Amino acid sequence: MANRDPAVGSVFQALSDSTRLAVVQRLAAGPASVKQLAAPFDMALPSFMKHLAVLEESGLVTSTKVGRVRTCRLDPRRIDTAADWLNRQRELWEAHTNRLATYVENEMGGGAEP
Amino acid sequence: MANRDPAVGSVFQALSDSTRLAVVQRLAAGPASVKQLAAPFDMALPSFMKHLAVLEESGLVTSTKVGRVRTCRLDPRRIDTAADWLNRQRELWEAHTNRLATYVENEMGGGAEP
Repeated sequence: MANRDPAVGSVFQALSDSTRLAVVQRLAAGPASVKQLAAPFDMALPSFMKHLAVLEESGLVTSTKVGRVRTCRLDPRRIDTAADWLNRQRELWEAHTNRLATYVENEMGGGAEP
Repeated sequence: MANRDPAVGSVFQALSDSTRLAVVQRLAAGPASVKQLAAPFDMALPSFMKHLAVLEESGLVTSTKVGRVRTCRLDPRRIDTAADWLNRQRELWEAHTNRLATYVENEMGGGAEP
């Protein structure tokens, strides 16, 4: 369990909401202002800003303010953090099923077949 | 936004908790009984069972009961669902940065260099 990266939990937490999932999907296509990001949602701006705050806290999104416009960007490193964790679990699972298949083959005496 | 798979949200929701993250990590190494899964956690069994229920609802975990022993297994297809979504966002982001790099090169007159 040495690979318990605390950042992974906060990324999954950030992605556990449909609004935040849609915002990440939008930002994957390129940066956008808060106004642009909020437009598709039937939601009060303060509620939307709370979702953005969760995304920023997780590190998935960064933002910069120029004048009165705050622009949000996806930070792909946190996408990688989450994808790497999932890939590791997949590899562990594959290793387990491979060991199981080898064991069953040997038990059935089929292990030496060409 | 055609790739808004509702299953993705429930997988990220299931993984948004450190106990459930640890259970998935344990099950990636192979099936385990509820008793074995619960052992490392300082938590009442009913609370632990609620976490297992969330994992089962998301499809990440399946379980079968033989006699008095319930055995849990990871279903790697839901791991793939989440990894695929993350990989798509990564690809979108790469495509955006590539387009941006091409644009900047052209604007600076460097696009025609060999």
